[in-house]
Parts: sequence; C-alpha cells; structure tokens
Amino acid sequence: MEIDLGRNVFEANVQLAKKLKAVFDDNGVFVINLMASPGAGKTSFILKTIESLKDDVAIAVIEGDIASAVDAEKVRAAGVPAVQINTGGACHLDGRMIKGALTHLNLDEIDLLIIENVGNLVCPAEFDLGEDIKVVISSISEGDDKPLKYPRIFSEMDALIINKIDLLESSDFNMDDFARSIAGLNPAAGVFEISCKTGQGFDDWIAWLASKLK
Amino acid sequence: MEIDLGRNVFEANVQLAKKLKAVFDDNGVFVINLMASPGAGKTSFILKTIESLKDDVAIAVIEGDIASAVDAEKVRAAGVPAVQINTGGACHLDGRMIKGALTHLNLDEIDLLIIENVGNLVCPAEFDLGEDIKVVISSISEGDDKPLKYPRIFSEMDALIINKIDLLESSDFNMDDFARSIAGLNPAAGVFEISCKTGQGFDDWIAWLASKLK
Repeated sequence: MEIDLGRNVFEANVQLAKKLKAVFDDNGVFVINLMASPGAGKTSFILKTIESLKDDVAIAVIEGDIASAVDAEKVRAAGVPAVQINTGGACHLDGRMIKGALTHLNLDEIDLLIIENVGNLVCPAEFDLGEDIKVVISSISEGDDKPLKYPRIFSEMDALIINKIDLLESSDFNMDDFARSIAGLNPAAGVFEISCKTGQGFDDWIAWLASKLK
Repeated sequence: MEIDLGRNVFEANVQLAKKLKAVFDDNGVFVINLMASPGAGKTSFILKTIESLKDDVAIAVIEGDIASAVDAEKVRAAGVPAVQINTGGACHLDGRMIKGALTHLNLDEIDLLIIENVGNLVCPAEFDLGEDIKVVISSISEGDDKPLKYPRIFSEMDALIINKIDLLESSDFNMDDFARSIAGLNPAAGVFEISCKTGQGFDDWIAWLASKLK
C-alpha cells in the first residue's frame, strides 16, 4: 500500500511536469531546475547569472526553501521578479508548487526562469518540474566524494557547476577522482569550474547557457 | 489518505525508536544521531572524535548513505567497527534500518554508538533513531543563513558543531547573525566552534561529550 501510494505521487508529478513543460514551451520560457546541497552557492550563482544576462534576457526566479524568504529578497534586490515557495517541511519542490508559483509570474514577459530547489542532493532529483535542463552545483568545500554518495542527482543533470574553485588549492579535494566519478555517471553533462566569489570560469557557463536559450 | 499513511509511517517510527532507545539503555550504549548537509564534515568529525576517545571508550559507528561504502571503510581503517547502511534512494535513516544494522554489532562491547545520518538538513530531522542526543554540524562554507532555512533540525538538536572555523576569516559568514538565529531557535543547545582540519575547539566538544557518556 505504501509503495502504491508512492507510485501515484510520483506518477501524478510526472504528468503535471509534462503539462508545465508544455506551458513553458508555448510561452518560449527556458527553465532551469537548480539543485545542490545547502550552502553550495545556489543563490550566489543565480545572482551572478542575473548580473551577466539581465541586459539581454528577461529573467525570473522561483525560490524554494523549507522556510524564510531571504533568497527571494536577494533576487528582487537584483531587479528580477522572484516568487518564494516555502515548502513547510517538504524536502523538494514538486510540480504542484511550481504551478502555484506561476500564478504570480507573467510568462509572456520571461525568457529564462531559474527554479532554485530546496537545498538537498536527494529528494529534488525525484521530482521533475517541467524544466528544460537540470543543473547541479557541487562545491569544493563539500569534498570530492559526493557523486559516489548521491549518484542519482549527478546522473540526471545536464550541467554541473563546480563552485568555490578558489578553495581548490587549500583543500584536499581531488579533481581527478571527482572528474572520474562524474565521467562514469554522466559523461554527457556540461561541466563548469567556477567561483562565484572571484568570477573565475563564469564566462564559459554563461556562453553555454546562452547557446541553449530559445 | 496520503496524510493518514504519512502519520502511520511517522508513528510507527516513533514507537520503534522508543524500543531502540530501551535496548541502548539496557546495554549502556550512548547514542549520537549526527546530521548535517553533504560535505559539512560528518565523517571527518567522527574520525577525529574516535581519535580523541578510542583509548578510553569503546566506539562503533553506523554510516548512512544513499550509496557507497566509502565512509564505513574510513571508520574501519581507524580501528572501529562500522556498519554501512545504503538507503537506496531514501533521504534519511529510520528506526527499521537501525534495527537491521544492530544485528551486525555487539552492543555489550560498545559504550558509544555514533550514527552518521544521510547528508541532508531536512528529512533526518523527522525520524528519531533511539538516540540519546542529536548533533548537527553546520560548516562555515555553507553560509550563516542555514538556521533560517532549515529551522526544524536546528530546533531539535542537543549540540551544534560549527565546523571549518578555520575558513571564518576568509569568508563572509557573519557569526553574530548565525548565533542570533541559533539562540532564537534553540538556546539550550551546546555550541562548539571547531576545525576538523586544525583541531581548533575540539577539546571542548570532547569534554562535553565525555560528561554525557554513561
């Protein structure tokens, strides 16, 4: 009975995600589902992406958190519309929450929608949100073994942002081991070594993203 | 129906956790449920705690991960028995998994059992494991806003380890803001600023833990 119910929840989300994808496509909105551990730098990454693109691309952001509105406030301060979803206790966003958030956005006026998922390497991987691409941020300070421990999210991503690259030299993070794990799980993903702090590597990510935009 | 089933799952775990607690108490085993984000330093913290205490205290470790056995291997290399639980896809440990792991441990020979939960600030907070204390690690590199975003886990902990304190000066982590959030959520928790890398602050944690052991 538990398993059946679980399957229904997942299956209902799959169907809703397909509908959301069609709505986004109809409106010419490119959607990123951004996933990472707490503190990997999701909001900093969004703010820096906004800074690089906002003169040419109409961006909006949906912020997912268990509680608080601090992230949406930061995004709004950068001059971009943001909707904060507070999940209460849920460990991931789902299609239903995105559908609700869309009532606060005018898709006609948006080219790029970035959805910041709840900080978590597990549950968000199981729920599509109608996105075009999944982007995962993994930061140097988290260590090089994360792909081994959380294989699903690293298998399903379209791009991997290795953030806090400025900390590489002072850490024991082994980039060869990390790259080998990623290549084993997901050789097709775009990989970008960046630092939101110093700006290193950001141009490559922006060029890659710009090439994907509708 | 979803809600009822959810309640049953939680309630069943509450009952099992109580039974586990009684088993641990009967055997004089003090149990820590250690929770943190991926990469906050849980395994390094366990290894350093083992190093400090293993001459005086019989320690065992249960390692919880979605996949891989890298953590249990590290703990065994430190000369301590370790059981690896792979949750498959589940985002937290639960009482049933701990009950299964106990068949691989001799509780008679253990004074201190450290359970490393799945790296996740959300789901582990909802499932007691029969522990005596909950310990949360939050690292400087994750940023100072984590208590605002994940209030439940910070509200329920008995001790907070602020790890990677060696990175404080080179980061924009605001310790006053962080301390204010913690004081608001959980003024009774023991708070320890440490670095697993340099050893700073570790003696205070060990002294506090030693005072709790049965």
